[in-house]
Amino acid sequence: MTFSTSSKGVYAIAATPFHDDGAIDFNSVDRLTDFYEESGCTGITILGIMGEAPKLEADESRAIIKRVVERAKIPVIVGVSAPGFAAMRSLARSSMDMGAAGVMIAPGQGAKTDEQTINYFAGAVEAVGEDVPWVLQDYPLTLNTVIATSVVAKIITNHPSCLMLKHEDWPGLEKISKLRAMQKSGELREFSILCGNGGMFLDFEPERGADGAMTGYGFPDMLSELVSLFAEGKRDEAHDLFDAHLPLIRYEQQLGVGLAVRKHILKRRGVIASDAQRKPGQMLTATAKAEVDYLLARVARHDKRAAL
Amino acid sequence: MTFSTSSKGVYAIAATPFHDDGAIDFNSVDRLTDFYEESGCTGITILGIMGEAPKLEADESRAIIKRVVERAKIPVIVGVSAPGFAAMRSLARSSMDMGAAGVMIAPGQGAKTDEQTINYFAGAVEAVGEDVPWVLQDYPLTLNTVIATSVVAKIITNHPSCLMLKHEDWPGLEKISKLRAMQKSGELREFSILCGNGGMFLDFEPERGADGAMTGYGFPDMLSELVSLFAEGKRDEAHDLFDAHLPLIRYEQQLGVGLAVRKHILKRRGVIASDAQRKPGQMLTATAKAEVDYLLARVARHDKRAAL
Amino acid sequence: MTFSTSSKGVYAIAATPFHDDGAIDFNSVDRLTDFYEESGCTGITILGIMGEAPKLEADESRAIIKRVVERAKIPVIVGVSAPGFAAMRSLARSSMDMGAAGVMIAPGQGAKTDEQTINYFAGAVEAVGEDVPWVLQDYPLTLNTVIATSVVAKIITNHPSCLMLKHEDWPGLEKISKLRAMQKSGELREFSILCGNGGMFLDFEPERGADGAMTGYGFPDMLSELVSLFAEGKRDEAHDLFDAHLPLIRYEQQLGVGLAVRKHILKRRGVIASDAQRKPGQMLTATAKAEVDYLLARVARHDKRAAL
Amino acid sequence: MTFSTSSKGVYAIAATPFHDDGAIDFNSVDRLTDFYEESGCTGITILGIMGEAPKLEADESRAIIKRVVERAKIPVIVGVSAPGFAAMRSLARSSMDMGAAGVMIAPGQGAKTDEQTINYFAGAVEAVGEDVPWVLQDYPLTLNTVIATSVVAKIITNHPSCLMLKHEDWPGLEKISKLRAMQKSGELREFSILCGNGGMFLDFEPERGADGAMTGYGFPDMLSELVSLFAEGKRDEAHDLFDAHLPLIRYEQQLGVGLAVRKHILKRRGVIASDAQRKPGQMLTATAKAEVDYLLARVARHDKRAAL
Repeated sequence: MTFSTSSKGVYAIAATPFHDDGAIDFNSVDRLTDFYEESGCTGITILGIMGEAPKLEADESRAIIKRVVERAKIPVIVGVSAPGFAAMRSLARSSMDMGAAGVMIAPGQGAKTDEQTINYFAGAVEAVGEDVPWVLQDYPLTLNTVIATSVVAKIITNHPSCLMLKHEDWPGLEKISKLRAMQKSGELREFSILCGNGGMFLDFEPERGADGAMTGYGFPDMLSELVSLFAEGKRDEAHDLFDAHLPLIRYEQQLGVGLAVRKHILKRRGVIASDAQRKPGQMLTATAKAEVDYLLARVARHDKRAAL
Repeated sequence: MTFSTSSKGVYAIAATPFHDDGAIDFNSVDRLTDFYEESGCTGITILGIMGEAPKLEADESRAIIKRVVERAKIPVIVGVSAPGFAAMRSLARSSMDMGAAGVMIAPGQGAKTDEQTINYFAGAVEAVGEDVPWVLQDYPLTLNTVIATSVVAKIITNHPSCLMLKHEDWPGLEKISKLRAMQKSGELREFSILCGNGGMFLDFEPERGADGAMTGYGFPDMLSELVSLFAEGKRDEAHDLFDAHLPLIRYEQQLGVGLAVRKHILKRRGVIASDAQRKPGQMLTATAKAEVDYLLARVARHDKRAAL
Repeated sequence: MTFSTSSKGVYAIAATPFHDDGAIDFNSVDRLTDFYEESGCTGITILGIMGEAPKLEADESRAIIKRVVERAKIPVIVGVSAPGFAAMRSLARSSMDMGAAGVMIAPGQGAKTDEQTINYFAGAVEAVGEDVPWVLQDYPLTLNTVIATSVVAKIITNHPSCLMLKHEDWPGLEKISKLRAMQKSGELREFSILCGNGGMFLDFEPERGADGAMTGYGFPDMLSELVSLFAEGKRDEAHDLFDAHLPLIRYEQQLGVGLAVRKHILKRRGVIASDAQRKPGQMLTATAKAEVDYLLARVARHDKRAAL
Repeated sequence: MTFSTSSKGVYAIAATPFHDDGAIDFNSVDRLTDFYEESGCTGITILGIMGEAPKLEADESRAIIKRVVERAKIPVIVGVSAPGFAAMRSLARSSMDMGAAGVMIAPGQGAKTDEQTINYFAGAVEAVGEDVPWVLQDYPLTLNTVIATSVVAKIITNHPSCLMLKHEDWPGLEKISKLRAMQKSGELREFSILCGNGGMFLDFEPERGADGAMTGYGFPDMLSELVSLFAEGKRDEAHDLFDAHLPLIRYEQQLGVGLAVRKHILKRRGVIASDAQRKPGQMLTATAKAEVDYLLARVARHDKRAAL
């Protein structure tokens, strides 16, 4: 199972299911893996920011990778961002050994100039190995590093092993257009663009040149359908579907509390057994839970999947 | 014209209209002032972040204040945030002399601890004068200063002249609930909460305890209607209206490019003559303009105001 | 009085003297101007970060510029950094009209990529006018914008009116070497480099290629002597002088409290009448004052100028 | 070997010695351990920021802890700061199992309010265990989190297992005075304060209330002597010694390049075999190396230890 510069569709950002006592719930890991596949996802990304990776011991991370990779029939990408290259290399190597399709790397915290960002990824690629396919994560809202379009292009040019951009800059539509224009003019080689940011702009990103989404919204089946509608040129229908979900997408995209919303939905959908997070985690208040449930009921008027 | 701790409704964050050559378009200033009133706004806030205040010479700022204050029949609040207290005092004093209802103050860039934030506002209040009614702007996404709920409470307690919170923390729903709970328990005195952030959560903020909105969305008339629907307890209708606009609200709330969207809509609505911005400004690409127009057309299916 | 790409020596970062009640002390402004000249300074920079510029009303700023420019027989540079280009232009224009030699511009707060930094200065130069000579201030410790060496080079290349770099990156020695190497290889045109950061590395900066210092240390006469010693190739003597002052230089270079140290020394030297700062200002505690006086006494064993 | 709230003297921030090929040089680890003891250090802190901890694989970290703890006859503290509590707990537990005296914890990157900082340390203490003695690292220049004096006090009050503050705020002298004043007034319990920041203010910190230093300056023997001189009330002699070293201390304290200076000195002193750093590392240019050697020669005129 591999991914490539022409990968399309939806890569689910996988949550990590815990029992109420904080232990990893491997049965729910299995169900979640199956669920993503059944939802039409073309890949799964695990141990990303929303996968509570920093709350896992090294052994636990490896256990989860093993479990998902062995079960999944679609490519699995592993988030290996770490404060140092040693931990990054170690996790990347064992991920690949276990059968992962590739890794995802975010910029280091300290990069403050274009050159520092470019050098950081050069160091990261040297650390994980030039043979390891990887996804460049561009997520300034959380990671604090703004990567200029020209710098994204430079990194992609420097590193043939970079096959995909996880695009979640904000605002970000013009960045997609610019990168695709650079490709058309021959300045830049081919690479896949999957969009994150909770799907907040997935009603326009495909037309701008994105190949799909890489995000963890509680309705990956809807994301798959949406990407398909765009592929079929059904613009209005795609927007109708998107607009029906947008109030919930928007609610789930809130920094910090978003993961709680996501786990709440996955639990309500019967995919995971508990919405528990490891500490530090932000749980939903009773009011917030009622708000999410109200939004679900409203979405359900247009999309039966939300009738829970 | 004054505002108070019980102010409600919609305070429009006013754009500043320019001619294509960059000169202030005072006729459009007048039309915009009238438009906000006709849209049911209960107040106008000028020279805020979206009002391109830093691009105005001191004399120009004063000319705009004078123009709006003299024309408006609703209270006008003036954004006076500045890198130093001298400029803040100077602008606040002349605003009040010209008849403004009060001023809005954002945290200074340097505050890195609760105490520094609290002290900053103490200095600001001393500078503008303890008799000047003011609005506390809580907008970490742009201003980089996170103000804890307890710090908002402390500032409000310290300064009787702080009558209103412009709430645009994100995520921010729980903050409203907590502040209102502190009031109920008697820990905190009364104050008005108007919500910003482009209106992105205005479908839940009133139920959390907000008194309305202070934002510049291109359809202030819709914001007014929305706040009224909530006041009348028409929850589902309010959500229907909100959801119809959300795709556009979301598009307009993009950092940087949002003002271009806003001016484009105001121009299409016939309120301002030109969508010109002074430098540095981010204009809409042709693609972005087409996207906004497509969203307008979609909104128009539910709300005739968007049929332009 | 002009400055140029070959300017050398010491440009004093001027403090702004206030009376104890906060009013500007123009007599002390005069004495300070004379003092800098008598100290061998080759220029004066006013209204910089350490000149409490944001605490001055616009009229006050202009009054100070007028006073210093009319009195000084050496070039005067005016700090015009501002949150918006309008205020920057306005201050720059009136500075030049009053006879200033040029202006100093720091990067804007929002620049997060090389391109944004480059564009910011393009906008600033357009605002103040391409005919106005200016100094590029590179001070990431306070201004939060790291300007890569290549970006400094680009800005200098883009703007012939940029005559000087106020170098206060930290660590910064290699940056000077790299810039001078770019000049030698013909990649970069001539420009002056004066170093700031309180003089903390002035024992090596001249050998790296700096033309002198632009800083506000309480002993500008010592800075002048130091730069002269280096010009004469008296390396060991220069270090002896520098080392004698370093404990005090280090103490004065503390962020925030440094200005209080500086004003305390200037007052003890009889140059300014009061060490008052406008709010917000950090004053010396009794303990800190005793520490500074102890350091002065220790410096005085090697340098009579410190025997106060 | 334990440390306590009354620990005094010098805790060396240990470098991690590598062979030229990047492998850990355990013989140099041994020599360095002995060297710190022979230098009069009262403790050793390993795997701190200057110990290149993020460049070590988990197994390597444990091997170094084991090696140092088994050899040292003074307490060893282990830096366990990590992006997540799981890794922190894991490293802390195995450190304690191997015989470490305690751990050092820095604030998490995300804390933006006092409450978030306080909660972060509550989570960290829960993770490592309330029985594990720890050092609170207060180092905003690198860690970006400013911890107000009141917040330091709160954390110390909340957690009896916090025995020591590694004080390296800047400016920081008043913070020491305030904390000690809070102790005297009975507001705060006893705790040790050792100062970092390369020793840049160690000529005043003991008089302000510090118990010594925790830093990695290449002459820990001089730091020990300095702290002893202060303990004996020999103020002038202490300053003479400090001032002789200050030019070098200042040079070594440069962010990034400082570790290269430190390793260069330790190598020249014959303690470690190679000054190699793992990537990403900033090496000394030939010019910088010559500058350091020149400074060493100048220090040697006053302190024979620097005659290398």
